[in-house]
Amino acid sequence: MSNGETKLVKYFMAKAKLSRSKFPIGIGDDMAQMRLPRGDSVLITTDMLLDGTHFDTKKHSLEKIGYKSMAASLSDCAAMATIPLAAVVAVALPRNFGTQNLKKLHKGILKAAKKYNCPLVGGDMTSWNKPLAINVTMLSTVAKTKPVKRSTAKIGDLICVTGTLGGSLTRKHLNFEPRLKESLEIAKAGANSMMDLSDGLSTDLNHICRLSKKGAIVEANKIPISKTAKGVNGALNDGEDFELLFTIPAKNFEKLKKLWRFKTKITAVGKITKEKNVKIEMPNGNIADLIPGGYDHLA
Amino acid sequence: MSNGETKLVKYFMAKAKLSRSKFPIGIGDDMAQMRLPRGDSVLITTDMLLDGTHFDTKKHSLEKIGYKSMAASLSDCAAMATIPLAAVVAVALPRNFGTQNLKKLHKGILKAAKKYNCPLVGGDMTSWNKPLAINVTMLSTVAKTKPVKRSTAKIGDLICVTGTLGGSLTRKHLNFEPRLKESLEIAKAGANSMMDLSDGLSTDLNHICRLSKKGAIVEANKIPISKTAKGVNGALNDGEDFELLFTIPAKNFEKLKKLWRFKTKITAVGKITKEKNVKIEMPNGNIADLIPGGYDHLA
Repeated sequence: MSNGETKLVKYFMAKAKLSRSKFPIGIGDDMAQMRLPRGDSVLITTDMLLDGTHFDTKKHSLEKIGYKSMAASLSDCAAMATIPLAAVVAVALPRNFGTQNLKKLHKGILKAAKKYNCPLVGGDMTSWNKPLAINVTMLSTVAKTKPVKRSTAKIGDLICVTGTLGGSLTRKHLNFEPRLKESLEIAKAGANSMMDLSDGLSTDLNHICRLSKKGAIVEANKIPISKTAKGVNGALNDGEDFELLFTIPAKNFEKLKKLWRFKTKITAVGKITKEKNVKIEMPNGNIADLIPGGYDHLA
Repeated sequence: MSNGETKLVKYFMAKAKLSRSKFPIGIGDDMAQMRLPRGDSVLITTDMLLDGTHFDTKKHSLEKIGYKSMAASLSDCAAMATIPLAAVVAVALPRNFGTQNLKKLHKGILKAAKKYNCPLVGGDMTSWNKPLAINVTMLSTVAKTKPVKRSTAKIGDLICVTGTLGGSLTRKHLNFEPRLKESLEIAKAGANSMMDLSDGLSTDLNHICRLSKKGAIVEANKIPISKTAKGVNGALNDGEDFELLFTIPAKNFEKLKKLWRFKTKITAVGKITKEKNVKIEMPNGNIADLIPGGYDHLA
């Protein structure tokens, strides 16, 4: 999200005037939360995926595209440390897309739905003389711990990530594993803030800091760089990692590491600071501003 | 929805294998229903609206387009006789769409959100070198009466509609009033089945009959034809009326008419039959098959 987008989201937040008792989490987080009259609560996320931007029908199979569409929203459920409940999918089909192609797309959607226990309960189908667009909306329910927000990082928290970062577009962006189980453990260990990495660490850490009214210092040397990333820059700025970015007090992180039973590793890459600047210490010891390098949808 | 689409929906329903206790209403109705652990229940609908199909950015103001996008989903909430809870909106913006245009669209969305007490709680924003696409997903909660489904029409029910039918595209499709209040009264009076008219009476009545495993006989003379419709054919086949189509025992309809306090009129246009054919009695007394005349998104 660019500066322009960030300003817009602030504008949307201000206009929404949501009741905090009914909507404890509103616009600006990975999901919004609603409280229901009898004491249940659901969270919701919606994502538009476009041919040529989020997938490429010329290169990728429709089954993989279907899987990815669901996995991206499942990653939002993970980002809040919540449990997927159900999904609805709306598609804008290019004319002459045909039933067989639609069934392939559906197969990939169902694959993710079954794997992560998030049934497809409805949808919409329309057509036009333009490329494929897929919109997934997903609901989740609260786990034993409260949903973990973006805006609640605390001074002194370690900044941590799951997995390795960067190069996703040449590698795993079509068949990644949303970190659902991992996120529940992270929440249980006492993480203060969390989101999923969709726009790159440089951009997404800036979100956490801005919303939490804190700063950060990242150590470049500590960033777990993916083999397919082009160095630190790729790890910082490539999108669609779908790993978790979370902040957690150091003693909770030690506890978490001892109990960690997943293949995916967790790494501390920096610390939340009082000063509201987001900085990076380069391998040579120089300290620079960590500037958002993600994609700007308003440019 | 065409025959091809109807078959596909059946295919999706069969593949979904939803638990009926958790999901009392699944794929194939205006909304899906989910039961939550503490006894609450929410319904969900998602709709994709496309430039050139559902609206025209060359002709219509972005504010009206925003309003319509929300109103179409609000009409789904009405179709089930439920109460709107919250909405999320995802947009695919043409490049260079710009902040001012986005704010105009947002203004229309908020206008509907406020008018019908259905706050906008989240969204997604992405861009491409293609026309505007808007996806609205809406949640609703159960009213005092149970949600009214499409599949529960009973033999002998009167087939009724709100308002007048046809010609919507030259008239009100951008600023119609979803029949939320009316639908609650209709449910309270004891309607057996209901949906909103989005594809035209000929198509939508066939849905109710197919899903209810019943037939119908419509009297052409009784159809309330809109002034802008091209005769009975327009009233039967034009899309986007966003009026309610419901079936109700005759004595309940009499009761409903006595208590009716809305401007929008209600009209009985036919009767549900045991024989599984959907028929129409023409003004000259001839009886013909009432064939779906709506739009086919797979053709």
